[in-house]
Order: sequence, then structure tokens, then C-alpha cells
Amino acid sequence: MFNVRVQVTYKDSVLDPQGQAVQKAIERLGFDGVSGMRIGKSFEMQVAGDDQAAVEKKVAQICDQLLANPNMEQYHYDIQKVATNQ
Amino acid sequence: MFNVRVQVTYKDSVLDPQGQAVQKAIERLGFDGVSGMRIGKSFEMQVAGDDQAAVEKKVAQICDQLLANPNMEQYHYDIQKVATNQ
Repeated sequence: MFNVRVQVTYKDSVLDPQGQAVQKAIERLGFDGVSGMRIGKSFEMQVAGDDQAAVEKKVAQICDQLLANPNMEQYHYDIQKVATNQ
Repeated sequence: MFNVRVQVTYKDSVLDPQGQAVQKAIERLGFDGVSGMRIGKSFEMQVAGDDQAAVEKKVAQICDQLLANPNMEQYHYDIQKVATNQ
């Protein structure tokens, strides 16, 4: 089994007004030095299987077909094998 | 300068209906073996400074005061120093 964490963010070329709003709110709270805020979605899941390459392929397909909008969004994922005693 | 990535998710005790809906959609697409889907928000930003401890404290304060709802959400963050030639 693998723990999978997918992060979907806007492409760098796409404006992120929500991120800009949060950045301004941070400034209004009195925190300085924060820049380049980008907001995205994260998906955490467990995927059954022993073959990391097969799991990576499956995760990429799930991202392409469902989780990310390929026109506006990019994704990356971390895959971590879960130690089991089976 | 530091690259900071904050991830905000529902506490484990809080139901995540959006995650369940996405998990069912994944099953309907024909992918099996995916479980425990949880959806969250991710925030990527750059924070100025040289002192990692001070940046961590600032990020924790920003999370507590703005990014996460302490009643329902938990957060964790990764901080990575950006190499500069200054």
C-alpha cells in the first residue's frame, strides 16, 4: 500500500486572485516578508498495490482524468510506501 | 528566503464528504484500490528571512490566525531554505 499526496495548483501563467487576497490579509495582520502566495488543492489517499511504478501510473491517470483541469492547473504527487507486516 | 508549503486538512474526526465524493468518482472511472481520500487546501509562499526558527514561528502564527480553522482543521507545513548568492 502507498500513501499518495497530490497537490493541484494553477499553472504559473494563470492568475491566482484568491492567493493574492490571502497574501494581502496576511499583510494586514502585520506579517511582512510573505510573497508569491499560491493556493491549491491537496488530495491525500491510500492506494493498494506493491508495484510503485504501477501506482504512479494509476495516480497520474487519476490526476489527468479527474483531479486536475489540464487547461489551467498543474499537479505533482508524492508517493510513499507504507510498511506492512503482511 | 524560505519556500513554505502549508497544507490544511480537516481533522481526522471531521467527516470529509467532498473527499468521499471524489473517491466514488475515482471508482466510477474504473480505478480500484483507492481509499481514505481526504481533500485539503495547500498554500505555497515565499517568506523572507535568514532565521529558520523565526520563519517557522511566523508561519505557525499565520496558520493559527488566518489559514486554518482551529475548530475543524489541522495544518502542517514544510519549510525549505532557498539558496541565494547574496
